[in-house]
Amino acid sequence: MNLKTTKLLGTAALASLLIALPALGQDAPVEEAAEVAATLSEGVSADVVFILNSFLMIFGGVLVMWMAAGFAMLEAGLVRTKNVSMQLLKNISLFSIAAIAYYLIGYNLMYPLGNWTIGSDETGGYLGAFGIGILEAVGITADDADDFGYAATSSDFFFQVMFCATAASIVSGTLAERIKIAPFLVFTLVLTALIYPIQASWKWGGGFLDAMGFLDFAGSTVVHSVGGWAALAGAILLGARAGKYNPDGTVNAMPGSSMPLATLGTMILWMGWFGFNGASQLAMGSVGDIADVGRIMANTNAGAAGGAVAALILTAIIYKKVDLTFVLNGALGGLVSITAEPLMPGLGTASLLGAVGGVIVVFSVPLLDKLKIDDVVGAIPVHLLCGIWGTIAVIFTNPDANLGVQLFSIVVVGVFVFVVSFVVWFILKATMGLRPTEDDEALGLDKVEVGVEAYPEFR
Amino acid sequence: MNLKTTKLLGTAALASLLIALPALGQDAPVEEAAEVAATLSEGVSADVVFILNSFLMIFGGVLVMWMAAGFAMLEAGLVRTKNVSMQLLKNISLFSIAAIAYYLIGYNLMYPLGNWTIGSDETGGYLGAFGIGILEAVGITADDADDFGYAATSSDFFFQVMFCATAASIVSGTLAERIKIAPFLVFTLVLTALIYPIQASWKWGGGFLDAMGFLDFAGSTVVHSVGGWAALAGAILLGARAGKYNPDGTVNAMPGSSMPLATLGTMILWMGWFGFNGASQLAMGSVGDIADVGRIMANTNAGAAGGAVAALILTAIIYKKVDLTFVLNGALGGLVSITAEPLMPGLGTASLLGAVGGVIVVFSVPLLDKLKIDDVVGAIPVHLLCGIWGTIAVIFTNPDANLGVQLFSIVVVGVFVFVVSFVVWFILKATMGLRPTEDDEALGLDKVEVGVEAYPEFR
Amino acid sequence: MNLKTTKLLGTAALASLLIALPALGQDAPVEEAAEVAATLSEGVSADVVFILNSFLMIFGGVLVMWMAAGFAMLEAGLVRTKNVSMQLLKNISLFSIAAIAYYLIGYNLMYPLGNWTIGSDETGGYLGAFGIGILEAVGITADDADDFGYAATSSDFFFQVMFCATAASIVSGTLAERIKIAPFLVFTLVLTALIYPIQASWKWGGGFLDAMGFLDFAGSTVVHSVGGWAALAGAILLGARAGKYNPDGTVNAMPGSSMPLATLGTMILWMGWFGFNGASQLAMGSVGDIADVGRIMANTNAGAAGGAVAALILTAIIYKKVDLTFVLNGALGGLVSITAEPLMPGLGTASLLGAVGGVIVVFSVPLLDKLKIDDVVGAIPVHLLCGIWGTIAVIFTNPDANLGVQLFSIVVVGVFVFVVSFVVWFILKATMGLRPTEDDEALGLDKVEVGVEAYPEFR
Repeated sequence: MNLKTTKLLGTAALASLLIALPALGQDAPVEEAAEVAATLSEGVSADVVFILNSFLMIFGGVLVMWMAAGFAMLEAGLVRTKNVSMQLLKNISLFSIAAIAYYLIGYNLMYPLGNWTIGSDETGGYLGAFGIGILEAVGITADDADDFGYAATSSDFFFQVMFCATAASIVSGTLAERIKIAPFLVFTLVLTALIYPIQASWKWGGGFLDAMGFLDFAGSTVVHSVGGWAALAGAILLGARAGKYNPDGTVNAMPGSSMPLATLGTMILWMGWFGFNGASQLAMGSVGDIADVGRIMANTNAGAAGGAVAALILTAIIYKKVDLTFVLNGALGGLVSITAEPLMPGLGTASLLGAVGGVIVVFSVPLLDKLKIDDVVGAIPVHLLCGIWGTIAVIFTNPDANLGVQLFSIVVVGVFVFVVSFVVWFILKATMGLRPTEDDEALGLDKVEVGVEAYPEFR
Repeated sequence: MNLKTTKLLGTAALASLLIALPALGQDAPVEEAAEVAATLSEGVSADVVFILNSFLMIFGGVLVMWMAAGFAMLEAGLVRTKNVSMQLLKNISLFSIAAIAYYLIGYNLMYPLGNWTIGSDETGGYLGAFGIGILEAVGITADDADDFGYAATSSDFFFQVMFCATAASIVSGTLAERIKIAPFLVFTLVLTALIYPIQASWKWGGGFLDAMGFLDFAGSTVVHSVGGWAALAGAILLGARAGKYNPDGTVNAMPGSSMPLATLGTMILWMGWFGFNGASQLAMGSVGDIADVGRIMANTNAGAAGGAVAALILTAIIYKKVDLTFVLNGALGGLVSITAEPLMPGLGTASLLGAVGGVIVVFSVPLLDKLKIDDVVGAIPVHLLCGIWGTIAVIFTNPDANLGVQLFSIVVVGVFVFVVSFVVWFILKATMGLRPTEDDEALGLDKVEVGVEAYPEFR
Repeated sequence: MNLKTTKLLGTAALASLLIALPALGQDAPVEEAAEVAATLSEGVSADVVFILNSFLMIFGGVLVMWMAAGFAMLEAGLVRTKNVSMQLLKNISLFSIAAIAYYLIGYNLMYPLGNWTIGSDETGGYLGAFGIGILEAVGITADDADDFGYAATSSDFFFQVMFCATAASIVSGTLAERIKIAPFLVFTLVLTALIYPIQASWKWGGGFLDAMGFLDFAGSTVVHSVGGWAALAGAILLGARAGKYNPDGTVNAMPGSSMPLATLGTMILWMGWFGFNGASQLAMGSVGDIADVGRIMANTNAGAAGGAVAALILTAIIYKKVDLTFVLNGALGGLVSITAEPLMPGLGTASLLGAVGGVIVVFSVPLLDKLKIDDVVGAIPVHLLCGIWGTIAVIFTNPDANLGVQLFSIVVVGVFVFVVSFVVWFILKATMGLRPTEDDEALGLDKVEVGVEAYPEFR
């Protein structure tokens, strides 16, 4: 199938899916939407609400932590054997660094609770507060709780630190197999201490994008596109892997070393996403909240399934074979697509929103190769492009969404993250250098930088 | 050890375990059984009960989703390298298709809420309602809840869709390495949209088997045997893998490609089963319900442990070596065995019920080979045979169980699923064809149909 | 870097970390500490407290069960290919045996509820009660609950049985690649039925160490050091793997077979530890308890991150390469270090406590090799040495801790477990024999004892 037909097919598929969206009647009725933030049921005491909300975030935090293992396995499975240990090392290291950076700087930058360094809750916040994350004292009573009407600060920190790490995980996949570990980890530090928290404060910390009415429930833009933009900036400065693109314009496939690991990683991510989206409801202390959490869970599953099935059908048509890696990335694309609004759609719409994500992945992976942007695991299609799609798609199901605001926010976040990331990568390139030598790259980073081969007995 | 001695040993082991069962005094006292459905504790408001019940199902749904990864890893580990990508692809695809099929058709077929297409709650229901699954609106209040006395519809859907997918996962293992992906996925669609939901409605939707008093707590028959029957029908029509059975009656071992993956899959399934069985209590809003959930968790663990230890000892005696795959399948057999009644037994009985499952697995795997039924991962012994055993065994611990009703239900479900599956497989064979060519099978499905090898750098 | 410099560096790092500890101001204020066991919030009914506490332990039990998979994957990744199936077999078998042994003997030995065989609650308990574990009846009401003020017995059993299995999991890693399965499993039976429960009763069953004021929140000593001592005794009697130590004093590296499995195992353990530590709060029925659970979760994560980062930096300095296995064990060392007191520290202190654990791991792994103690996976540094460190470190953050009592308890538990384990190993060596023949060891245990190779198609 030539490229033109492919494009036509893709456009047709996208168009038909978009047309089908409004036709699905089981989306949340508009009049119900106003009740989302309904007051607490009279049948649940404030203490119980506090406990249940906190536990939801603890539950979610455990699941989102698990996504770090998902990224590690996915990426280890999609790189070549000689770089597998490095990819594992990067993943566990970036997660650890994120945990510390977010505690030291990120948390209060992201949630200034009104104490903006630049801006204010009234005029719009731009830069949060500086200071380490401090949890409530041990054994608090209701009076001592930071926000008794909501949840324990500790549970909130635990949940949010995992989101910060997720953004960093996305970057490592794109840049795999050709970046030294030191500059990668320094960038991770900047990303998790500053870049991610600052832009996240604009929405989730009550900053200026939130004030404008930007809607991004669990972070299609705030988390996923951020990882994608940072990865894109790095990929451009870093260049492609040696041997990836031939002078004649053809592309050398560099198949991943282990499909079981890639699949395991995807299914871990799928599982973890129930925490990512479901616990982003941030409350389950009322009848409405728990029913919403259930809705989000079911929709998240539908979105992933839609993405996988769309990629399955599309690759079967285009390539005559069903490429497993596309199905995996299709599922992930579906998950990212539903993340900006996993609550309002009905199950059918959720499936379709996810399916569009799967279509985007199938068409944009070859497109990136055409642009000679070497994205080893497909993180840019999955997290950046589907993140943008998901953020826009909020307008189809949430009557409070405004297309202009959604687009503006996508652009603002994108410009900020891309430019700052580019500058940081540029400085790292100029100082530490980003790439190993050609010989080292050929030898593989496991031997050169890790000193531990992934499978030393299989050569 | 010759076959006769083996059979004698097996019979003796089974008999002694069965004799030991009633002797264990710590099973649930009969008088307590009546209290299982006790009214709600006065100390818990209806809102809190609704929240807790819903959350239990959300928690369970996440764990049962995780079982899909367990099946994927187990099967990827037990097939040969050349078919690993295909097995992974089938697993993630069947799960995605199940999610959509169950939403479009299955859910209301399974839970018609009295609106039976054939039959009624009074006369006995046979065929449920047609229509897509519709969740409650966003942000409902108690008055708007579909069933305020129970749980959120969304949480119920989320939990049940995972069960449907589980039934489909069972089939893929048996038929591995020699079925084309297209007919397999079409069968999956029929199984998850129609076959599974229809028979499940007979018990869990309040249909005619339920009216008769059939007891199957979490689905030894309704889920596991269903997957097993569908797999058996397919295996008979499909035939064995090329080279599996020699003309002289001997069997060629075709060892699985990765024991770590098989073990990981088993342990994932073990973990996920806590959701499968534990959340099937469907309630944790009272003192009695949460204590029961804990009981189920502990018994489920005991059943798995019993199955593993029985297989461990038995293979050590019979084969002089401890075959890991038997221990893994023994654990799974134990889990299936305890699934029909994980609540009423005490820990000792639960262990023994599971141990019988492990014994069944050890003896029936070679038996299937004798019948030249090529079950690649042992899913028929584990899910079908132990499913039958578990369903019968309910009579040992639940005074409400009736042996005749249990047997009748096993047969009715078995005949329905086997016959319909056989017809569907037959049609698929006649139209699309089930098997790849001999050359393609020899080459491996990864190269032929997936185009992505599982471990491209290891050949 | 020579050994002397290494030691100096290590001492300096340890010293500076220890000095930094008290400087961190955000630790729990002393006056708050008294409120840890605060009375229940008036806003939560006793039934709801019972339900929530029970569910916390069910949630925790599922996560701690998952740690068994973590140990299995970690150890499978760190042994050589020829012993991988054996390592997997040992892990699933020991978990199953632990489940049954703890039910038959261990549970009541550990929790005699005042019925001490030797000693009493008043004079100090030394040996608990004998008898099988019995759960509450099905569908209990508040009146029938064993301890309505706490939680369901079933949930407690479910949680505790997983801890017992964890202690046994630790042993298998150290002794890998050179111990026959039969004596290993017999030792497991003794460990889980007797050794672990008896010493655990001294603290958690309300025995004499508890009466003295010994503090060990989730088991740095009671679980982790116990596994470590038992492993050490076995390693001494068993001797090193053939070819590990050369006569000239040099050490042969025997790299693990799969870094992805080792990393997966570590991340599973990291995830499971949230249940291990978090649910050890044993309560979430009040505002204070749930906030504490959140604290523990956040601190546990910080401890692991601290351990990983410390190992990352230290190995980069010492070895010029970042050894992935050290980073993995550093994270685990951080987790063990925070386990004795995951509640009282602030996030910074938790990170530092974990970092010290990471430092301990990096320096003690070569030390063990110097002593010719062949610890295949590094379990002794991680679980024994960091367990001791974590237990001592309680004095830095918990004003109720007494250094003398902590040290005394470490020694008492250590002497008991080491001596009894040594005797049991000695008897097993004299009777069954511990080691396979030299030829069998060279051939690998998978072929000799399991009969199933881990990766039969890759040789």
